Amino acid sequence: MTQQGILIVVSGPSGAGKGTICQELLSSNPNLKYSISATTRQPRTGEVNGRNYLFVTKDRFKGMIENDELLEWAEVYGNFYGTPRQYVLEQLNKGYDVVLEIDTQGAMKVKEKSPAGVFIYILPPSLDELADRIHKRGTDSLEVIKNRLQCVNGELAQAHNYHYIVTNDQVPAAVEKIESIIVAEKLRTVRNTVLIDNLYRTGSVGNETNAIK
Amino acid sequence: MTQQGILIVVSGPSGAGKGTICQELLSSNPNLKYSISATTRQPRTGEVNGRNYLFVTKDRFKGMIENDELLEWAEVYGNFYGTPRQYVLEQLNKGYDVVLEIDTQGAMKVKEKSPAGVFIYILPPSLDELADRIHKRGTDSLEVIKNRLQCVNGELAQAHNYHYIVTNDQVPAAVEKIESIIVAEKLRTVRNTVLIDNLYRTGSVGNETNAIK
Repeated sequence: MTQQGILIVVSGPSGAGKGTICQELLSSNPNLKYSISATTRQPRTGEVNGRNYLFVTKDRFKGMIENDELLEWAEVYGNFYGTPRQYVLEQLNKGYDVVLEIDTQGAMKVKEKSPAGVFIYILPPSLDELADRIHKRGTDSLEVIKNRLQCVNGELAQAHNYHYIVTNDQVPAAVEKIESIIVAEKLRTVRNTVLIDNLYRTGSVGNETNAIK
Repeated sequence: MTQQGILIVVSGPSGAGKGTICQELLSSNPNLKYSISATTRQPRTGEVNGRNYLFVTKDRFKGMIENDELLEWAEVYGNFYGTPRQYVLEQLNKGYDVVLEIDTQGAMKVKEKSPAGVFIYILPPSLDELADRIHKRGTDSLEVIKNRLQCVNGELAQAHNYHYIVTNDQVPAAVEKIESIIVAEKLRTVRNTVLIDNLYRTGSVGNETNAIK
């Protein structure tokens, strides 16, 4: 029997470094799968359809909502973002852990439906650093940047609803912290009652030691 | 300001390997302090007073109970065991994490008083392995061994009251798992609200990034 994977939801203000952290995390952890969001926003320079996002039209997005194909969806800065449900459930059932990098609105919807998920909020080390990173990225217009920074305080207020806070001083350190969170979460008693039961029934914890592959 | 340390309580059936795991953990993590229990039982071969236990008389132990010097105490297999309170609180206030290696009775008393503690239960990979380890240790009489094994099922039932289950297949792997638990626990939102507040108030998370030294 394969253990069910863990759903890991990562949020944080724009410019906190979620994207880079998730990329690093994925590249060094083969048991992790990235859930690609569908969006109606325009691709930024270098973004590839099917890898960074599923770029869809507003009509197609509305169709996905109507057919209940989305685990969550939200409108952010005038664009629609959503998480296709089928891919996530398939991977979890295969025993893979799935990373959702989504905004706080979407994350709170997922938390209602999937309380067993692990919710991680990425903080920038400072607001100056945050503004600096958004400018350096150079992919957004000045107006979009101003809009993003104005939303930061509202975003930060949501951090209290997450299970973990990871400050992104340095990407490798932040990635290691998230790796520790994943290891620890797999050790939580609620996910391991089968080990105790096996030891009772058969005298051995079985092959599923601590649900870690 | 120094962040308060974390109280880590480790339990598990006799022979699960708690002692070895805690020793390894302590030797590779200078921020961890071991809380030495007081006990009225006789020292086993090689055990040193003040390092493994405070070996005290029954009269002295009763005095400690009467003077409220113990965080918890319990009678196990006819002997008394207890945790001197002062040392634990001093270390936590200095920002050290403190490991208590205590039985399930004592652990549940600590859990009532210190709900912020982290409770970890060590499982043996199998009951055969457990019996084997107790025999190999060669420090207990046959009668004591029989008594210990009879208590195992009752002990295992307590595992559900702990936050984490760590199977001790191999000591180094078990130690790494506990290290991940400690890292993750320090990232929990409830211990890091100060970071979010700092970012609001001063524009920076401050020097206490994720409470990790």
